[in-house]
Amino acid sequence: MAAPSRRQTRSPLQVRLAESVLSPGGWFATLDDFHRWLAETASLTYMNVRRVPLNGLSGWEVERHTGNLRHRTGKFFSVEGLDVHVPGRVVSHWSQPIINQPEIGILGILVKEIDGIPHCLMQAKREPGNHNGLQLSPTVQATRSNYTRVHRGRPVPYLDHFLDTSGHEVIADIRQSEQGAWFYRKRNRNMIVEITGKIEVAEGFCWLTLGQLHTLMSVPDLVNMDARTVLACMPFSGAGLTPAPTSALSAEPGDAFRAALVRSCDPDETGPHTMGEVLSWITDMRTRTDLHVRLTPLDEVRGWRRTDETISHETGRYFDVIGVSVEAGGREVGRWDQPMLEPSGTGVIAFLVGEIGGVLHALVHARVEPGYADVVELGPTVQCTPESYDHLPAGARPPFLDEVLGAGPERVRFETILSEEGGRFHRARNRYLIVYTDEAAGIDHPEYRWLSVSQLGELLRHSFYLNIQARSLLFCLTSLTSLTGTATTTPVPLAAR
Amino acid sequence: MAAPSRRQTRSPLQVRLAESVLSPGGWFATLDDFHRWLAETASLTYMNVRRVPLNGLSGWEVERHTGNLRHRTGKFFSVEGLDVHVPGRVVSHWSQPIINQPEIGILGILVKEIDGIPHCLMQAKREPGNHNGLQLSPTVQATRSNYTRVHRGRPVPYLDHFLDTSGHEVIADIRQSEQGAWFYRKRNRNMIVEITGKIEVAEGFCWLTLGQLHTLMSVPDLVNMDARTVLACMPFSGAGLTPAPTSALSAEPGDAFRAALVRSCDPDETGPHTMGEVLSWITDMRTRTDLHVRLTPLDEVRGWRRTDETISHETGRYFDVIGVSVEAGGREVGRWDQPMLEPSGTGVIAFLVGEIGGVLHALVHARVEPGYADVVELGPTVQCTPESYDHLPAGARPPFLDEVLGAGPERVRFETILSEEGGRFHRARNRYLIVYTDEAAGIDHPEYRWLSVSQLGELLRHSFYLNIQARSLLFCLTSLTSLTGTATTTPVPLAAR
Repeated sequence: MAAPSRRQTRSPLQVRLAESVLSPGGWFATLDDFHRWLAETASLTYMNVRRVPLNGLSGWEVERHTGNLRHRTGKFFSVEGLDVHVPGRVVSHWSQPIINQPEIGILGILVKEIDGIPHCLMQAKREPGNHNGLQLSPTVQATRSNYTRVHRGRPVPYLDHFLDTSGHEVIADIRQSEQGAWFYRKRNRNMIVEITGKIEVAEGFCWLTLGQLHTLMSVPDLVNMDARTVLACMPFSGAGLTPAPTSALSAEPGDAFRAALVRSCDPDETGPHTMGEVLSWITDMRTRTDLHVRLTPLDEVRGWRRTDETISHETGRYFDVIGVSVEAGGREVGRWDQPMLEPSGTGVIAFLVGEIGGVLHALVHARVEPGYADVVELGPTVQCTPESYDHLPAGARPPFLDEVLGAGPERVRFETILSEEGGRFHRARNRYLIVYTDEAAGIDHPEYRWLSVSQLGELLRHSFYLNIQARSLLFCLTSLTSLTGTATTTPVPLAAR
Repeated sequence: MAAPSRRQTRSPLQVRLAESVLSPGGWFATLDDFHRWLAETASLTYMNVRRVPLNGLSGWEVERHTGNLRHRTGKFFSVEGLDVHVPGRVVSHWSQPIINQPEIGILGILVKEIDGIPHCLMQAKREPGNHNGLQLSPTVQATRSNYTRVHRGRPVPYLDHFLDTSGHEVIADIRQSEQGAWFYRKRNRNMIVEITGKIEVAEGFCWLTLGQLHTLMSVPDLVNMDARTVLACMPFSGAGLTPAPTSALSAEPGDAFRAALVRSCDPDETGPHTMGEVLSWITDMRTRTDLHVRLTPLDEVRGWRRTDETISHETGRYFDVIGVSVEAGGREVGRWDQPMLEPSGTGVIAFLVGEIGGVLHALVHARVEPGYADVVELGPTVQCTPESYDHLPAGARPPFLDEVLGAGPERVRFETILSEEGGRFHRARNRYLIVYTDEAAGIDHPEYRWLSVSQLGELLRHSFYLNIQARSLLFCLTSLTSLTGTATTTPVPLAAR
């Protein structure tokens, strides 16, 4: 039997997390200190990334008969073909290259109270796909190949705390999907583990409060995708998020938006749909969507051009598969080659949000992507690369895209360019937007539903309900519980990172 | 936006369901009336099932090159091979025949208040695998082939209420798995829909209260598997389940077991594990289990003997694949052939239950079956065919099997032989047991956890957490909220059904 929990002698987790949200400083007294630390850390490491031909990657081979790209060890990942059939859709049949990485990695953040305030242990890390070098990543970001040390690198710091959680408090622990357009059923285990004992801070690591992380979300390309998906799993209930009138924040101008957002975190607030109705809608979308996907030899994808250098779509759209040669200092392995996906264009990832009964709700889309384990996941209101639609008639444009792109600045509550996973994607960047609408109650579309932050958080306790883009955006949205206007940061110029 | 809900003007759903649980009569004043109706209904229909050679089934073909058995239309289901590899297990590699039925069927129960008490619309239905003819099935039990009418039969009664639920109250709506040892990723949509308008009761259908259904659970082979899995989704909270001292039930002897069971339904009661801990444990089991399954040609399964008549394991264990020819009156289609799985022996499916802090908990097992969509589902404490272990040393026996089989009658709170799905399985019967232990707090095993009824119910709102056997047993367990000792039924002799 479990021993009596430590929790009972402390404030409830949600209240302690709210203290971390409302705390402007901690281990770093100010964010200027953080940015100085980041610049200094950047100066200690380097990573040179060169594009090289796909067919000459050291350690990789083109499999006979299939043309699949795979690592000689059979580990890491492979690039294969995928044949997709969705009867009834406008584009009902296509094939494409896809990354197959069946092993489940760990994305983990350690939490610890410092001076009574929970802090997150973050790592400043370079990835070959980052266009700006260092980004802020979780404490641990490890594939199974990585932590079983297939590439004979150094051990992953802090990994033990996630492989054996006994004696620690597990705040979140759930497998979630990644990009279903680029990965075939990729899943990572998202973990947040709170520890109490002493712990050394290794080089390249730092402690940040949730309030500091929230503010840093407005810095372009800083908080990486893996950090965002884990941080999205942080359980908020709204408790403690309304500061007392005597707190520092009370000096800010009253913010009805923030109040509606805090109410949205409260599980006792009701909205247009009960959880039962939301779950039934997801069941219905998953049942009625007739999705057929089949891994095929990479040589069999149609509509793609393969050279020794790259694999590209005939139209130049979507993405290229490219090869890179990486030379790194201050990382587990000094030098390696690998294939990467390089998307064309900068995408738009946006939530339309609005008040329904005084509670903020976000409009989620029941989205089909071929790489999902379970047909449909809930995505942002808008998730696309607008240029892909430039040659098509206006009617073919994704719903709400024009609404989002046409919103005046007074309606844009959040806007930052953020990067996708730099270990697999080369310079994949998206414009993350949260756009407010006054007309939420009038928007009704069978493939969309208005959900509160609390409902999104409830779904996030289980696998494969919210896609990676929606999870990132959810953390952008909850970051607004800290921000009361513009961010008070002094980012280091991107080129210096 | 959704219109204001009807719900708000009535008692909460859980309280209304509790009224149905505590109601001894309704549409049928007594269960004797029900049994008379069942015998009469049985007399109006017939089904003759003959065993015929597998290789001569009308409408079915043996696929060239693979040996797979499939219907000529490509619909319904096929029998294929499965190659299974679970490194680290005692039996780590095997192959077997498996039913592949990718389409998602609907199992639905209509609920309606009659004289203010919710009733369930049940159908008395024959299936070729039933050893006793008629069993009680859900309102609707339809494969997609079935309701798109591939076999040009009559339309499925009441199906429209589940295909379009607008205007009705959806009480449950979730896809769940079926036997992972016999089906490859089979899922059915389990639905409970409450209606209010007038509705005709077709021949072979009847309305039963939850209390009546609970009592009927003690009748062998009566409530079929599809009915049990849907009924398990009925949301109980314990509210209203404790009868007032003036009610009819207060005359029964005090039952501490029932009180602990009712507390177990209450989401506010705590137990040894929080839901967060349970979810983290499931994540851990799913992540650490290295399961590799691959559909193969049926001709490639090793260790199985195929003749024109059947496919059997060399040892005679596990199951046979057989052919049957069916002739039915009073069913959608009058005559058809099909393959079926015929398991060897009668299985044991048991929950060990015990009180922890005055709240009843059931011991669930994180179980790996090759046909699961997601590696691990929670199963009963014991789920096996004991004879399969007779030739093995005692150490190889499943944990808790001897504890369950050796329990004295005073510890057995539920025991009935129940049938598995008669549309695919030929005379598949299991002994369902609920066995009480005084020593719950002392039992601790890494692959098992003690969960309350409320926690099991919370998991049941989502797909693929509880396996079909655990769902059946959960309904057996909640049926004990009605029973206050022995069932007061007069079952019709089995042969007469």
